[in-house]
Amino acid sequence: MRIDFRTDPSRYRHWRIELDGDVAVLKMDVDPAGGLSSDYELKLNSYDLAVDIELNDAIQRLRFEHPEVRCVVLTSGKDNVFCAGANIRMLGKATHGHKVNFCKFTNETRLAMEDASENSGQTYMAAVNGACAGGGYELALATDHIMLIDDRRSNVSLPETALLGVLPGTGGLTRVTDKRKVRRDRADVFCATEEGLRGAKARDWRLVDEVVPPSKWQDAVTARAKELAARSDRPKDAKGVPLTPLRREEADGRVSYSHVELELDRERRVASLTVRGPSKPAPANAAEAQALGAAFWPLAVARELEDAILNLRVNEPAIGLVLVRTDGDAQAVLTYDALLLNGTGDWFMREVRHYFKRVLKRVDLTAKTFFALVEPGSCFAGTLAELIFASDRSMMLIGTREGDNRAPAAIVLGEANFGRFPMGNGLSRLESRFLGEPETLDVAQAKIGAALEAEEAEELGLVTFAREDFDWDDELRVMMEERASQSPDALTGMEANLRFAGPESMETKIFGRLTAWQNWIFQRPNAVGEQGALKLYGSGVKPGYSMDRI
Amino acid sequence: MRIDFRTDPSRYRHWRIELDGDVAVLKMDVDPAGGLSSDYELKLNSYDLAVDIELNDAIQRLRFEHPEVRCVVLTSGKDNVFCAGANIRMLGKATHGHKVNFCKFTNETRLAMEDASENSGQTYMAAVNGACAGGGYELALATDHIMLIDDRRSNVSLPETALLGVLPGTGGLTRVTDKRKVRRDRADVFCATEEGLRGAKARDWRLVDEVVPPSKWQDAVTARAKELAARSDRPKDAKGVPLTPLRREEADGRVSYSHVELELDRERRVASLTVRGPSKPAPANAAEAQALGAAFWPLAVARELEDAILNLRVNEPAIGLVLVRTDGDAQAVLTYDALLLNGTGDWFMREVRHYFKRVLKRVDLTAKTFFALVEPGSCFAGTLAELIFASDRSMMLIGTREGDNRAPAAIVLGEANFGRFPMGNGLSRLESRFLGEPETLDVAQAKIGAALEAEEAEELGLVTFAREDFDWDDELRVMMEERASQSPDALTGMEANLRFAGPESMETKIFGRLTAWQNWIFQRPNAVGEQGALKLYGSGVKPGYSMDRI
Repeated sequence: MRIDFRTDPSRYRHWRIELDGDVAVLKMDVDPAGGLSSDYELKLNSYDLAVDIELNDAIQRLRFEHPEVRCVVLTSGKDNVFCAGANIRMLGKATHGHKVNFCKFTNETRLAMEDASENSGQTYMAAVNGACAGGGYELALATDHIMLIDDRRSNVSLPETALLGVLPGTGGLTRVTDKRKVRRDRADVFCATEEGLRGAKARDWRLVDEVVPPSKWQDAVTARAKELAARSDRPKDAKGVPLTPLRREEADGRVSYSHVELELDRERRVASLTVRGPSKPAPANAAEAQALGAAFWPLAVARELEDAILNLRVNEPAIGLVLVRTDGDAQAVLTYDALLLNGTGDWFMREVRHYFKRVLKRVDLTAKTFFALVEPGSCFAGTLAELIFASDRSMMLIGTREGDNRAPAAIVLGEANFGRFPMGNGLSRLESRFLGEPETLDVAQAKIGAALEAEEAEELGLVTFAREDFDWDDELRVMMEERASQSPDALTGMEANLRFAGPESMETKIFGRLTAWQNWIFQRPNAVGEQGALKLYGSGVKPGYSMDRI
Repeated sequence: MRIDFRTDPSRYRHWRIELDGDVAVLKMDVDPAGGLSSDYELKLNSYDLAVDIELNDAIQRLRFEHPEVRCVVLTSGKDNVFCAGANIRMLGKATHGHKVNFCKFTNETRLAMEDASENSGQTYMAAVNGACAGGGYELALATDHIMLIDDRRSNVSLPETALLGVLPGTGGLTRVTDKRKVRRDRADVFCATEEGLRGAKARDWRLVDEVVPPSKWQDAVTARAKELAARSDRPKDAKGVPLTPLRREEADGRVSYSHVELELDRERRVASLTVRGPSKPAPANAAEAQALGAAFWPLAVARELEDAILNLRVNEPAIGLVLVRTDGDAQAVLTYDALLLNGTGDWFMREVRHYFKRVLKRVDLTAKTFFALVEPGSCFAGTLAELIFASDRSMMLIGTREGDNRAPAAIVLGEANFGRFPMGNGLSRLESRFLGEPETLDVAQAKIGAALEAEEAEELGLVTFAREDFDWDDELRVMMEERASQSPDALTGMEANLRFAGPESMETKIFGRLTAWQNWIFQRPNAVGEQGALKLYGSGVKPGYSMDRI
């Protein structure tokens, strides 16, 4: 089964967006028959990847299409249940790879909610109007404010450990300790019980922000939403930018978008990803950019690159290595950058910028090797130069190629490379790169705008290798063969460590500490063996655990 | 096989300590036949847990028994090989549990070297006089200065990924990025090749600090060691404190030390760990304390507690829960604390303090649940109160028990609880505990010295539950049964997340990000399956990898 991440509200089966001025209500009302597979039913607002693909789309559209929305209320459209979390039968039947990719995507989606609250003036709050268990509570945790109805029934819980022998791995454990800052012994009690907490105790233990009796519920939710909306800096009368359908053509191992091209060589386990620079001059100002809408080059590239990356992750497991190229005019990229980065006051530029940031973070988290190839005709400048720094290695051609009259390849640094697209650890990619030689960061910054050819770029530490034409093919072939011969698992673990030097944040802890432990558990017989809790859940048979503590 | 962590230099088979004034040479010369099992030979200075138990012992003794030693030179006693890393045949045959515990202990040992360099005025340097691969290079990475002989042969390498399909999991990846701060693309190249680097390139890539030609090697090593020694603040004429043999008696599921007692109920999967307070008044000053030597109560407790914890880890996998109790006089503990914590200028007090810190960190990293039980007769004061805060939960008895005329239980906070025993994340346990309510930390600090009975302690957030006698047994039974019924793997992952709220350090990244990924890989068929690289290494048969990237 190939999974498509493209959708739009007219096709949603699980969510409703209800707009009311500056507040949007995002209502979860999962269609039990609307999962990716008919192997399971999505009862009680439980979810699978299909549900999360819609949620991800809704979060994006609220930001771009609804500048007027300043607060998003996440709630349930069902009676007595907010959300039961990830569907267990789905998890029980899923391959290890699907579980891992499912969790990664759902984690990114929840971080996108937090990014909207923090950076977009669109604050998420959860109105928990029923039982809120596991992934359901993790969804609430990703909002900035959690209200719980005090009806003596509705509760919050993380029953994964007790019931399923796995972790609340969609950020749950990390947000309990690092965002909600729940005391560790209380967190231990909470996370080891099936029942969870409700009412005042849930608030006193910092698990929710407010508990409200049913009689006052609707008014309190509305008032709180209005209050959060009032803090926003989003513009009053802006028009939204429609995220028009993303066009993708697929034929003979080639996936084509307007500015992104993916070539798949599944036999050699290599993909070629090419990003094309702008084909038109940059618009004169933000208003003109907005008039272009989804065709505005940086937005188009972000959407296409994101779709390509997500496709590589879930639909192309055999691909181990992605060769990253660009094609176009570096100066044209920089004129777009000027608009994107300097128009800080413009809501649309801000959205595009943060979106690009999130797409680059998806690259950081993708379990494929990325090698950037910098060749004549490329346009690794500013925003696009980040693709070099997001790659595991890079190689740059010295001089020109016989029969090619284009100028030698050059990298052009811009403001984009110095803090505008932070990684999950809070540092720019160049800052992370030069942790050991911060003075190089200053040297590089002084070169902003200069066309840096191969040897200078290598000297500055911007690329791994500068190579002459006569070495190029051999060197690349050897690197490709080496990578293709090594254990994909070891490479995934190695990259997950080497890419995140320096500080950790709540975000990186979710993908490091929490996810890595969860992936370990997802391999353990106690969870996934024939007697494992995930396999036996709902069967009435108790799981048979190996009781060794490891 | 039961593993004993006790040893002393007279019994070493793998290491030699050569003393020369303020410099000690710690020479690795592994006896191939001296491993824990005869299933494998420890060729080429490869190591198993037996080798590391001696290394750990040597590091301890150098600190306590040799105040005159200010620099430790780690080198090889064999020709042309520094260390080939962990023995692969051992890893290939080991159970998952043994691999995990082996890696944990070796990681702690390397951190103990760094702790000596940072806090003990005893700086470690590596004199890499031969091939230095995998765990061998990880050993060098744990020193403060790496010298590499430039003989066109000796090199440093991390071939785990390329050769074995696993990670350099003994801190390797983390120290390359976070300690040596190697650029990520170079780290990628280095960690994906078998051959590693030698000579000037190894230095230019920040993998070693110095390369020295063979003709100057011995002089250069000596000069560097002298220079590092000269920076030390260790006393000139102090006498060492011999770490006399640790006495342990075992009978009928009871393990007894002088001040620590462990009772094992393997059927219920519960251990009772009791630490007894001092039986004698504290010595008047540091000199008197030193005269007591290994019998000095805090040192005795640290050694015994450490041995008990290590035994629980590797010899008692069935034990899931440890009930932590103390027995004695709180004021007596505090008088020892006064000596320990205020004698900052005294080298011996400093050693004991840092040792206690390291033992508490071992508790933090132990994959068992700890419940602290605070009852009449207990002495959870100062240093010993840390055991409550290192536990996953705690319960404290309100008032007295029928027929027991001892005073109600009280916790007494001391300076010990406010930064003197930091966790791996750099925070004190109370700081981590009160991340969400830092004002509580101040309130608690104002209570230093006060006897805090159950209800006040609960109110202050120092214990999880205060309970009356008539509730106690039932509550404890339910908690014990609940814990015993849950998946040990999920509990391990849960605790590894909940115990480390807030910031991450290089140290916690090693046990979080790196270890968790390694443990995942240690479960994957590409490493441990019949066709896996760890299984087939040395057989001449190439591993058969599943090529899916996950």
